[in-house]
Amino acid sequence: MREVAIIGTGITKFQEFWDKSFRRLGIEAGLSAIKDSNITGSDIDALYIGNTSAGQFINQEHIGPLVAEEVGLSSGHIPATRVEGGSAAGGLALAQAWSSIASGMHDIVVVGGAEKMSDLSQPEIIKAEASGADQEWESFFGATMSSLWALMARRHMYEYGTTREQMASVPVKNHSNAVNNPNAQFRFPIKIESVLNSPIESDPLTVLEASPVSDGAAALVLASVDKASEYTSDPVIIKGIGQGTDSLALHDRLSYTTCRATSKAVDGALKMSGYSIENIDIAEVHDAYSISEIMAIEDLGFVEKGEGGKAVEEGWTDIGDRIPVNTSGGLKARGNPLGATGIAQIVEICHQLQSKADKRQVEGARIGLAHNMGGTGGTAVVHVLEVK
Amino acid sequence: MREVAIIGTGITKFQEFWDKSFRRLGIEAGLSAIKDSNITGSDIDALYIGNTSAGQFINQEHIGPLVAEEVGLSSGHIPATRVEGGSAAGGLALAQAWSSIASGMHDIVVVGGAEKMSDLSQPEIIKAEASGADQEWESFFGATMSSLWALMARRHMYEYGTTREQMASVPVKNHSNAVNNPNAQFRFPIKIESVLNSPIESDPLTVLEASPVSDGAAALVLASVDKASEYTSDPVIIKGIGQGTDSLALHDRLSYTTCRATSKAVDGALKMSGYSIENIDIAEVHDAYSISEIMAIEDLGFVEKGEGGKAVEEGWTDIGDRIPVNTSGGLKARGNPLGATGIAQIVEICHQLQSKADKRQVEGARIGLAHNMGGTGGTAVVHVLEVK
Repeated sequence: MREVAIIGTGITKFQEFWDKSFRRLGIEAGLSAIKDSNITGSDIDALYIGNTSAGQFINQEHIGPLVAEEVGLSSGHIPATRVEGGSAAGGLALAQAWSSIASGMHDIVVVGGAEKMSDLSQPEIIKAEASGADQEWESFFGATMSSLWALMARRHMYEYGTTREQMASVPVKNHSNAVNNPNAQFRFPIKIESVLNSPIESDPLTVLEASPVSDGAAALVLASVDKASEYTSDPVIIKGIGQGTDSLALHDRLSYTTCRATSKAVDGALKMSGYSIENIDIAEVHDAYSISEIMAIEDLGFVEKGEGGKAVEEGWTDIGDRIPVNTSGGLKARGNPLGATGIAQIVEICHQLQSKADKRQVEGARIGLAHNMGGTGGTAVVHVLEVK
Repeated sequence: MREVAIIGTGITKFQEFWDKSFRRLGIEAGLSAIKDSNITGSDIDALYIGNTSAGQFINQEHIGPLVAEEVGLSSGHIPATRVEGGSAAGGLALAQAWSSIASGMHDIVVVGGAEKMSDLSQPEIIKAEASGADQEWESFFGATMSSLWALMARRHMYEYGTTREQMASVPVKNHSNAVNNPNAQFRFPIKIESVLNSPIESDPLTVLEASPVSDGAAALVLASVDKASEYTSDPVIIKGIGQGTDSLALHDRLSYTTCRATSKAVDGALKMSGYSIENIDIAEVHDAYSISEIMAIEDLGFVEKGEGGKAVEEGWTDIGDRIPVNTSGGLKARGNPLGATGIAQIVEICHQLQSKADKRQVEGARIGLAHNMGGTGGTAVVHVLEVK
């Protein structure tokens, strides 16, 4: 199993783009990562794409060759593979790209994530998002992604006494971080009161506790570690990868307040990396909703079960405190173009580990963790990254 | 790069199922492969699923955890990943599953392909299929999968003198093979005249030259070769894997009559296997339309460019002749549940190499090739398999 490094990153701004197509966003991120890595097009052996639902969002399946052509790689006819796993598509694509190098099949691979959500009407977007839940048991009967997370939020409040103020602290922190991220969708601070008083999205969750509709793309260039030094002096090594699943439908799970896909994924990633959770300096985690981040930091092991709300409210996850979480602004404030999100998390971790995060830099960050989740937690994938 | 073997296969009957859901078909194929391999559920490290468009066909994305749960693996929370590449999804999923074992990440992996197409109306099915072509340049303007392949057929007739009778010979051969395949959708022979006189699907192609709407699933159990002997005495070794892409839109290609994704894929697979095309004893190739098979056997190198029509008409690809092609009945007569097709091809090759193909057995078959293609040829993946 040979080691794999990230040697280049690229990302677009995340927002609702009325003037840029799916393919345009893919080009921007892809070419930017290629330029950053100092490789040329002919060095690339293969392409992996994380995408959640282009079939529903833009009536386009078969995304692999489309992106390969747009990035200018069609003349080489290189392999291009799309991976899907709800909003965990990006993280899963990275895992496959890693595997293709670790196996010896490829040496240099580009992995991207992209989604164009804003071309549909709001009800159509809600329907497409809900297809990441269980169609036969949940979405067919009208359950939306928000309503399912709202169930989990209520249960978390009941079991652990998590308060609405604690939950509201999540988007407040993430907006605060996004102010210093030039690619973020929402670069303005918000207050606890604004979150609590914004319109209800799905009781108890308000609109300001939910990640937005976003368009965007992000990309990475990976290389085997022995090749990486030819191109960069500060490669970021993929030290650990872990992946897990849980029942798609909530009713089949043992608990509404623990995501076992996350536990499985983080156990695998840490074991492979040789580190423990205490060694992690920064993390990007799934905050599609406020409650998602609270559950994530618990299930990842950063805090005890039930302490997630308190941890955020007391600032333990702020930049400069115990374990900075979502320094990019997270899904909430950086934006959440579904298939791009898992790759955007990795881009942020790389920037932090390479001391390129400017005003949101976490001093001395050397080991980072990214947690990418699909739907209500049917899929989770965790990567542990390190800079030498 | 450690070697990987197939140690179990499972497949459902292919047809339009009005009484079986997507998940039901997945269970049938998955459990059948697990039983065939002599493993138990707890031996399984991960799951890969090839699926083309469940988002459009059954409003369900996030297929990985759904299938994991249905096959009874949710208690282990094992990684489950969906791979998409038009109708090449199955072959691509196998390539990822291979990679996950070759890299050392996993030891035993189940890979499945499944599609439930018949729940939609015919126009909706045509639209979903057309999303495997280029939405912005082709399907948005009304191009269908049939009409795009019809363009290629016309050009092949013009450039190489391929006749309508030669094209009609493809479904005639494949129906003849399917008579002896108990899982095939159409187990009856047809005649050249019937093909030529059946209704036009897209001029010059008739309905009997096109693969049908199908529901179905197929599955494989893979293991590292060192583990394989614990479970089976006749493992089928994956000797070569190759994958290629071409422009999604036809107008960007150098030729309408050569699929460069196929050339790239077969070159890669043969190089990795150490064999040449002359060593191949049997092949399953993409025959979504009659012309697809003619182009495939040319692009794979079984015959010279332009000789594909003649080869089929003269019987060179019949069982017992030079290079038996689509002994299962192919996409045309075995059926074409898009994401399941690539895995079904591998199931057939395994049965042939293990001398389990009963009345359609090719005597002495030792090395087989499977060619799985997406859309009009934007993606192709080729596997070379061998039994010791």
